[in-house]
Amino acid sequence: MGVEFLKIKEVDEAKEIINEKFNEYYTPQPEVIDISDSNNRITFSKIESKIDFPPFNRSLKDGFAIKAEDSYGVNEENPKKLKVIDFLEAGSFSDKTVELGKSVEISTGAPIPDGADAVVMVEFSNRAEENSELEEDEIEILTSVTPSQDIGQKGSDVKKGQVILDENILLNPPKIGVIAAQGINTVNVYKKPKVGIISTGNELLTNQEELKPGKIYDVNSEMIKAGVNNCGAEGRCLGIVKDIYDDLKTKIQESLKECDILLCSGGTSAGVGDNIRDILDELGEVYIHGITVQPGKPTILGVVDGKIVIGLPGNPVSAIVIFNVFVAPSIKKLAGFKEEEEQKTIKGTLARRIHSPIGRMQYQLVRVEDDTVYPIFKDSGAIFSLASAAGYTKVSKQTELLEEGEEVEVILFN
Amino acid sequence: MGVEFLKIKEVDEAKEIINEKFNEYYTPQPEVIDISDSNNRITFSKIESKIDFPPFNRSLKDGFAIKAEDSYGVNEENPKKLKVIDFLEAGSFSDKTVELGKSVEISTGAPIPDGADAVVMVEFSNRAEENSELEEDEIEILTSVTPSQDIGQKGSDVKKGQVILDENILLNPPKIGVIAAQGINTVNVYKKPKVGIISTGNELLTNQEELKPGKIYDVNSEMIKAGVNNCGAEGRCLGIVKDIYDDLKTKIQESLKECDILLCSGGTSAGVGDNIRDILDELGEVYIHGITVQPGKPTILGVVDGKIVIGLPGNPVSAIVIFNVFVAPSIKKLAGFKEEEEQKTIKGTLARRIHSPIGRMQYQLVRVEDDTVYPIFKDSGAIFSLASAAGYTKVSKQTELLEEGEEVEVILFN
Repeated sequence: MGVEFLKIKEVDEAKEIINEKFNEYYTPQPEVIDISDSNNRITFSKIESKIDFPPFNRSLKDGFAIKAEDSYGVNEENPKKLKVIDFLEAGSFSDKTVELGKSVEISTGAPIPDGADAVVMVEFSNRAEENSELEEDEIEILTSVTPSQDIGQKGSDVKKGQVILDENILLNPPKIGVIAAQGINTVNVYKKPKVGIISTGNELLTNQEELKPGKIYDVNSEMIKAGVNNCGAEGRCLGIVKDIYDDLKTKIQESLKECDILLCSGGTSAGVGDNIRDILDELGEVYIHGITVQPGKPTILGVVDGKIVIGLPGNPVSAIVIFNVFVAPSIKKLAGFKEEEEQKTIKGTLARRIHSPIGRMQYQLVRVEDDTVYPIFKDSGAIFSLASAAGYTKVSKQTELLEEGEEVEVILFN
Repeated sequence: MGVEFLKIKEVDEAKEIINEKFNEYYTPQPEVIDISDSNNRITFSKIESKIDFPPFNRSLKDGFAIKAEDSYGVNEENPKKLKVIDFLEAGSFSDKTVELGKSVEISTGAPIPDGADAVVMVEFSNRAEENSELEEDEIEILTSVTPSQDIGQKGSDVKKGQVILDENILLNPPKIGVIAAQGINTVNVYKKPKVGIISTGNELLTNQEELKPGKIYDVNSEMIKAGVNNCGAEGRCLGIVKDIYDDLKTKIQESLKECDILLCSGGTSAGVGDNIRDILDELGEVYIHGITVQPGKPTILGVVDGKIVIGLPGNPVSAIVIFNVFVAPSIKKLAGFKEEEEQKTIKGTLARRIHSPIGRMQYQLVRVEDDTVYPIFKDSGAIFSLASAAGYTKVSKQTELLEEGEEVEVILFN
C-alpha cells in the first residue's frame, strides 16, 4: 500500500517524456488499402503515375480533326470544304488517316486520328443541312486553327513516372480523383495504430446492466474510444476490470497482445484499490506518475513488453482533458498527422474570472457563445459539464487569476 | 439529337431550385444506432437523462464519512476520536448506520452511508499507526466540516428527465461521455442519405481493367463517392455505363431503387451520345439543364420517381467543383449538418491575375501557400491540377479580371 509517487512532472517535462517514449517504441507503419477506403487517410509514400495522362492525344472539343494546314487563310467569307471520312466518339478509335482535304468528326475526349494535328470546333463548321452546296459526307470549316489547337497532348497533364502525390498528404476527394485517373486501385497509407481501452473500477457498470446501489455507468470506454478514433487511430474497448490486482494485471497482459498502445482509466491515485502503478512497476517500467496539472494529476505512463501503457484518471472530465493534452498529439503523430493539424483553437473574451491553484497548470472547461468564453465551474465528479463544453482554457501554473474580460485561447474538443 | 437547353440558370437561381427540390422530395430521417458508432453523427432528437447523476450521494474524496456535528469545534489542537464501523470502496455499499461518535472509512466515489452527512479527507485524520493512543478500530479527525462537505449529492449534476443534449448536436468524445454516464446505449441520429453514383462514357475503364487505346480510367466514381461521404452521407459507386440510351435508362431506373439520390457524371452536354437529359425527360422531369458557370455549364437536375437525379459534367475538375458548389450543401443539410458547417474558407492574396468570362460565374482552382493564392491554369481536361488545388476562388459574372495582389476568398475542398 502507498505507492511512492515518482517526482511529479511539470507539464512540458511530461509532454517531452511521452513524445520521447512514443518515438522510442513506435515507428509509423504503412498499410496498403483500396482506393475506395482511402478518403481522409494519409499517404505513407509518394505516389507515382503509372501512365501518361492523357494517355493519348485527345480532342478537347466536339468538332472536326483536320490538318491545321487545311485551315490557313480560312474564315467565314472564305470557308473551306472538307470530306468527312470517319466519326469518332470518346472511347473509340479510328484506323483511318487524315490527309489534306479530309477530316474526322470527333467528340470531346476521343483520340486524334493519325494525320490530324488540330481540331475545329463544331460551332465553326457547316454541314449539308446548313449549306445545301455540301454533300452528305462534306463539311465546310469557317475558321483557321493552329497546329495542336484544341488537342490535349499525350502526357501533357502528367508524364509516366512523375510524382503525383507526395508522402504525408491527407487524401480528400480531388486527390483521390488524381489517383483514380491513373487506374491505381490501392494506396499505401499510414496504418491506424490499434489503441486498447480499459476502464477500471469496482463501481463501473456496462450499458447492458441495470443500475445497482453504489454503482455508476462506465463513461470512459466509449468517450476515449471516440477520442482515439478522432486521432486517426483505431480505438478498441476491451472492457471493464475490477480494482483487483491480479485481475487487472492479467487483463493488462492480455490486452497488450491485441493492441499497440493501452489506455487504462481509473486506479491511478495512490489510494486503496489503485493498482495500476504497482502492476506497471511489476510488469515493466513507470516513467511518469503524477503531473502538475489540474485536473488529472495522477496520470501514469509506463512501458510493458515494448508497448506504452497510459493510466488516465478515472474521473471522466480529467480523463478526456488529459487524453487531449498529453496522449492525443502522440497518437496523431503516429497515425501520420502533422503537428499543425493537431489542435483547433479559437480566441474569446472571458465572461467570468477564473481562480487557479499556483504551482499547477489548470485546464478549465469552458462554454463558448459567439466570442464569449464562459468557464464551467462544477464538482470534480460532474460529467454534465461536458455536454456544453466547447473545450478548455489553460491557466499557467504561475497564474492565480484570469480576470473577466481577458482574451483567452480555447483549445477545442474535436 | 440536339436536346434544347432549358433556359440556362443563373447560379443563385440554380442553388434555389436545388434547395427547393431537396426540400420538396426529402425529409431528414432518423436512425437509431449504438453509442459505439455515434461519434461524429448528429442527434436527431433531444436526449433526456434516464437517471439522476450521481445516482446516489457519493464521496468526492478518500476519507471518513461522519456526522458533521461530530466535527464542530475540532482542529489539530482539539482532535476528535471516532470509531470506524465499516470500510467502503467505490462500487460497494454499507448496511451500517453512522451515528454520533462513529464513522465509515470511504473511498472517492463510494456511496455515503446512512446517517453520515459529511466527509473528512484522509489528510485530516490520524490512525492507530500515527497515534498510539488510538485503538485499531479508531481514528481521530483534525478538522471541522460542514454538512454536505465533499459529498456529491444525488442528482446534483443531472436530474432524471432533464435534457442532456439537444437535437442537431454533432456528437464528439465529451458528448458521448455525457450519454454514456446515463447507461444509454443507443442514440437517435440523422440517417445518412444513400447517394448512388454512376459514371457514363464509352471511354471509361474501371481500375480493374488494362488501359486500351482511346480509353481513360474512370475518375468521378471514387472522387464523388469520397465527396458524398464527407457530406455525412453514404456514397455508393454503382458502376460505369456506356452512352447508350437504353442501357443508361435501365441503369438509372435500377439505381434509383437502391439509393435516395442519384448522381451521374458525363453525358450532360447536348452533343452526340449525351443522353442524360433525354432520359430524364422521358422518365420524369428536368428542372435545370445548364448553369451560367465555368466550368460545369452542362449540369442537370431532374426528378424521377420522387427522387433527385443530378447530371454532373464528365470532366473531373468540373464534376468536383459543381458537386461542391451545388450538390454538397443540400446533401449536408439532409444529413443534419448546419449551414455554418458547410464550407470552410480562407483568405489570401492573389499571386497572379485571373481573367474570367463575363456572364458566367467562374470557379478558379487555386493552390495556397502561406497566405498567397496561386491560380492553377490548365487545359479543361487536366486532372493533375486537383493534386495541388486547395480549393477554388469565385470570380463573379460581372468581373472580367481579378488583379494580382487582390485579397480573395478560397473555398476549401474538404
